[in-house]
This record gives sequence, C-alpha cells and structure tokens, in this order.
Amino acid sequence: MSSKASDGLNRRLVLGVFAALPALPALFDTSIADAQTAADPLPSWNDRPAKQGIIEFIRATTADPSSATFVPPEERVAEFDQDGTLWVEHPLYTQFVYCLDRVGVLAKEQPALKDREPFKTVLSGDNAAIAKLSDKGLFEIVLTTQSGMSVEAFAADVKTWLATARDPRWKRPYTELIYQPMLEVLRYFRANGYQTFIATGGSGSFVRVYSERVYGIPPQQVSGTEQPAKYGYGKDQMPMLTYEPKLLLDNLGAGKIENFWMTYGRRPNAAFGNSSSDDQQILEYAKAGSGLRLSMLVLHDDEKREYAYGPAQGLPDTKVGTFSQALYDEAKKDGWFVISMKNDWKRIFAFEA
Amino acid sequence: MSSKASDGLNRRLVLGVFAALPALPALFDTSIADAQTAADPLPSWNDRPAKQGIIEFIRATTADPSSATFVPPEERVAEFDQDGTLWVEHPLYTQFVYCLDRVGVLAKEQPALKDREPFKTVLSGDNAAIAKLSDKGLFEIVLTTQSGMSVEAFAADVKTWLATARDPRWKRPYTELIYQPMLEVLRYFRANGYQTFIATGGSGSFVRVYSERVYGIPPQQVSGTEQPAKYGYGKDQMPMLTYEPKLLLDNLGAGKIENFWMTYGRRPNAAFGNSSSDDQQILEYAKAGSGLRLSMLVLHDDEKREYAYGPAQGLPDTKVGTFSQALYDEAKKDGWFVISMKNDWKRIFAFEA
Repeated sequence: MSSKASDGLNRRLVLGVFAALPALPALFDTSIADAQTAADPLPSWNDRPAKQGIIEFIRATTADPSSATFVPPEERVAEFDQDGTLWVEHPLYTQFVYCLDRVGVLAKEQPALKDREPFKTVLSGDNAAIAKLSDKGLFEIVLTTQSGMSVEAFAADVKTWLATARDPRWKRPYTELIYQPMLEVLRYFRANGYQTFIATGGSGSFVRVYSERVYGIPPQQVSGTEQPAKYGYGKDQMPMLTYEPKLLLDNLGAGKIENFWMTYGRRPNAAFGNSSSDDQQILEYAKAGSGLRLSMLVLHDDEKREYAYGPAQGLPDTKVGTFSQALYDEAKKDGWFVISMKNDWKRIFAFEA
Repeated sequence: MSSKASDGLNRRLVLGVFAALPALPALFDTSIADAQTAADPLPSWNDRPAKQGIIEFIRATTADPSSATFVPPEERVAEFDQDGTLWVEHPLYTQFVYCLDRVGVLAKEQPALKDREPFKTVLSGDNAAIAKLSDKGLFEIVLTTQSGMSVEAFAADVKTWLATARDPRWKRPYTELIYQPMLEVLRYFRANGYQTFIATGGSGSFVRVYSERVYGIPPQQVSGTEQPAKYGYGKDQMPMLTYEPKLLLDNLGAGKIENFWMTYGRRPNAAFGNSSSDDQQILEYAKAGSGLRLSMLVLHDDEKREYAYGPAQGLPDTKVGTFSQALYDEAKKDGWFVISMKNDWKRIFAFEA
C-alpha cells in the first residue's frame, strides 16, 4: 500500500471512530493515559510516597467520571514553579546569570554605567563582591538589562545567550539542567488532560523564550514577574513593543497566586514549588480548593548529585531558594508532599546514565 | 455488538491509527477542517470579501505545511475583542448594566452610598441622569461594585445575574445577544488549530465567568482590564483572594496589546475588533507581523437588525463603541477588512429565523 493510500485509509478510519464516540477529549485522555500508565509514567522516581501520591492524584481526578474526586478535563490545571522546582537554581538563578552577562554588553553601549553601582561591581569581575550585591542591586540590574529592547529583540537575545552559556559546574547549557523526574511529571499530567502552567518568580518574558521547547509548556501558559512592554512606532512607523525598566507585576509570594488568578481565572488543582518566599501562598491556595488537591515541595537535600540547602531538616539556609522550617512544618500539617531529591529521585538529569 | 465491546474495538482502532501517523495535532487540524469546509464553515455570512478573506486566511496559514504562509499549529493565535465584536454593546456595555444593578445591592449593605455620587444618581433611577454619568463616575462604580468579594463570590454573583437579567430591547439573556457569524468564526479558527483569545476593554474577571460556556474560550484565554485579587485568610484561616477597588491593568487602546504580550507572549496572527479607543493598536500590531496576517473591524451599520453608530461612513458617533473615520481610513490603507453587519451577515443572532 502506498503511503498516500495509507493516509487516506487512516483518515477514514479515524473519522469513523470519531463519529462513533461521544467526545474527543475523553477519548484522548483515556487512550494516552492507558498507554503511559502501563509503562510506568514516572520511571525516574523511586517507589515511595511522593510518586504514589502523584499517581493516586491522577487516577482519582481523571479515571472515573462518576467519582466524587473526578475533575472535568477543561478544569484540569497544574502549576509549577521553575527555579529549584523544574531546574537548578544554584548558585544563582539562571536569569541573573544572563542579566550579569548583559551588563558587559550594555556597558559598551552606555559607558556611563561603568562608574555606576551596582554595574561597577558587576564589571569588576570580583565574584565575591558580586555575590554580596543586595536584592535591590540585583533587581536594578534585571530591570536595566531587560529593557530598552523590542520584545522580539529581547527574545532573540535570550535565545542566543542560552545557546552559548554554560553552567559552571556541569559545563552544560542551562536548559539541560532540568530535573528529569519533573519532566516526567509534566508529561504525565498532560497525558491525563491537565494543562500545565509555569508560575515563576523570575521574568515570564525570559521563560517564555524556551518554555515550549524545553518543558512543552506554551508561552501563554507561563506567568511571571513582569516589566511593562510599551506600545509605540519604530522605523518606518512600524508598530512595536519595547520593555521598560519598571516593575508591573511582582510574582513572588502572594503575588504568584494573585497574578495567576488575574491572568488565568483558575485555582490550580495541583501545585509544585520549593521556596518559602515564593511558593507558600500558591501551594496553600491550591490545597484549599474543593475536591482532591495536590501540593508538593521539592526539597534540595542531595549535596552530591545537586545541592543541599534550606533550613528544613537542618540543611543550611541560603539566599537563593529558601525553604524554611516553618514551610516544612506547614507542609506536614496541611498534607502537602515533600519531595526528597535524594530519596525520591532515581536520577536528576536526563544526561545521567 | 455490545456497547462495551464496541468501545474496546474503537479504542484499539484509534490507537493503531495514532501509531501509524506522525503527529496528533496535524491529524486533528486536517480532519476536522475538511469536515467543516465541505459544509461551508461560515453559513451566516454572505459571500463577499470579508467571508472570502477569512476563508483564504485559514487556507493559506493551515493547509500546506510547505507554503511560505503556513503557520505551525502551536503558533496559531487569534484574538477577539468582546463588546461590539462578539456581542451587543448598546445602549450600554453589559458589564455596566451588571455594575449598576449591583449598586442597589451594595446600598443595602452600605447605606452611606445613598448620599454619595455617583451612587446617588444611579439609585435615583433617573435614566437620563445615569446616561450622563462621566467616565470617571462609571469607572468608580465598576471598581466599587466589583470589589470587597472573594473571587468565587464575585463569579457566583455574575453567574446568578446573567441567569436572570434581560436585555431591554430583545428581552433575552445577554448571553443570547452574541453574533452568530462571529461564533462561526471562532469555531472555524479552532477547527483549524487556532487558539482563540478574548482581549476585552471590560473586566477579564467578568468575562471569564461565561467565556467557556458561551464562546468556547476557556478563562485562561481571556485577558481584560483587571482589579487586583488580594491574598489573605478568611474564616477558619482559609486562604482566599479578594478583589480590591483598584485598577491594576488597563486593557484599553495600547494597553490591550501591551497586556496581551505580557500575559501570553504572542503576537496574534488574526485580530478582530470594532472600536477606535479600544482595538486600534492590537489590530495594527497583529497586521504588522511577518507572514500572512488578518485584521478585521466590525462596523455597526445595521440600524434595523442591531444598531448603527460610529462616524465612519456618516454614521452617528456615540459614547459606547466609537469607530472613527480615522480608524476606517487606516483600515482601508493598511489592508484590514471592514465587516459590514448589514451587508456581510445573513443573520445576526442564533435566535433569528
């Protein structure tokens, strides 16, 4: 049979099957889910409570439409923090590394920056001094380096940077430092009809550049801290949007769920995070909804394979990605799962054997 | 054959077909599009340039992957204004009617409102005086009546109101005053792999309550003017989000495309609007992108079947839904389509014979 004839046959077969069934989404969810479940949807996870909790949540909310815990396909929303939850955030958020690198580029265009703090410190190359920059200083660097460009020019610049920048420890592109177990969770949720969203404390505009390619999450399902994109007219009166050095939406802490609601009008059924300063409220709000809910925290307790930080369980606290004892206690009290990277994950990265 | 056995057979057939084909989205787009196109996807449209323009746009961007105008499925984005583009906006935006009705409810809870303008005028029931309220007054009414409630309580209140409120002219629920030709456009775009978005000058929080049921557009694809939803803890320390009487995002004029980009990170391939004050910039920006683009304006020129307003072509200008001569001229110069409700639409509402 020629491939053309085969296509024709397949299409007729499919159309016939479609006509015989009540609704497409239901068909999809079931067939893909069956295929995935049969072959272990989470192969990089050890068979412990966290993995069992995810699988049970998916089963209870998607398998049986007559069940009290069933969630209709159009309402299935799963939210994921990015830094420290989907990929490595130490020793510095990847976006900060990009912004620090851009200070050098900007200084060539605007020499006056060389004598102005915090830019002067960044340009000094003194890593100890850079590490001591205040939050205010880092924030000024982000606003300055991520503005003055059209939205397309910014996206192109991030794309170019990601293609060449390398993480200092693994010597790999940052987009390879994604947690393989979490990629499996994203795919497992989507295969069961969930729409997956990123809600990041970083800039949504940064994450949207690679979210589809790297996580399978389209830009329109990424919310973040946002600088305004100002409308105007450029060369030949072409309409354009240009990022401004201002803060419009702050997506940290309570802001993360406030903006998530404002943007999507949804309370997540499941939420994943790792930080006291960043994820507490959205995980609380997700868990507090009616029906079955899933809130999960990633605990960085694997010094050997990744990093160990956060005061929970006696780990050292750090400036990046805090995980306080109070958050740990709240998680235990409120029935959230705490994912131990050391014990729950068979492997951390796709590039590991 | 029992229905259970039939389901089993169908599932096996479908899985087999899936395995034989390269990618699911491509299959879907083609098969559904074929079925729709064969039977005229836009039956409520007269066969004139506007209808031809829509059909040609869909064909050119979806039919042939090797074509220069083809748009990959994941990038297909179509944006629609709501008031005056998808449903009736005269004599008053539906959301304003809701807010005016809520003033009466609020005055019972907060008697002090009875002596305060603009609430005093609204409570007087003097329609001539109400019609003369300033934009500032209307805006204060919106902020006041749409705040102080949890996000769930607000959604429930809008839902209840929509179920009982009736338009004064057609004596029907407002959600029946949707333009049938535009519903066909929404479905035609979606059947061809486009994601459809609403970008409204009104409150996104209002439209999200009924967007899925009425337009088939999920809440997460509705952007609008937004009041902040503040995070806090209510009874029994339950996490909750409460709308505040403030403006956070202004989705009028340039704000509409600025917020659209910030929220979704996409430039629409196609955009539909009707108002000089509301839609000019997003239609300009959509049209200015690379590849084939579609910008369309709905002109309200059918006094008999709906309303006629806007200075274009000598129609009277009004406060609601302006359509200036300048916008009309820009549309003609820049290759946008102007949809004449009178000439392009065979019927306006689904309830018409």
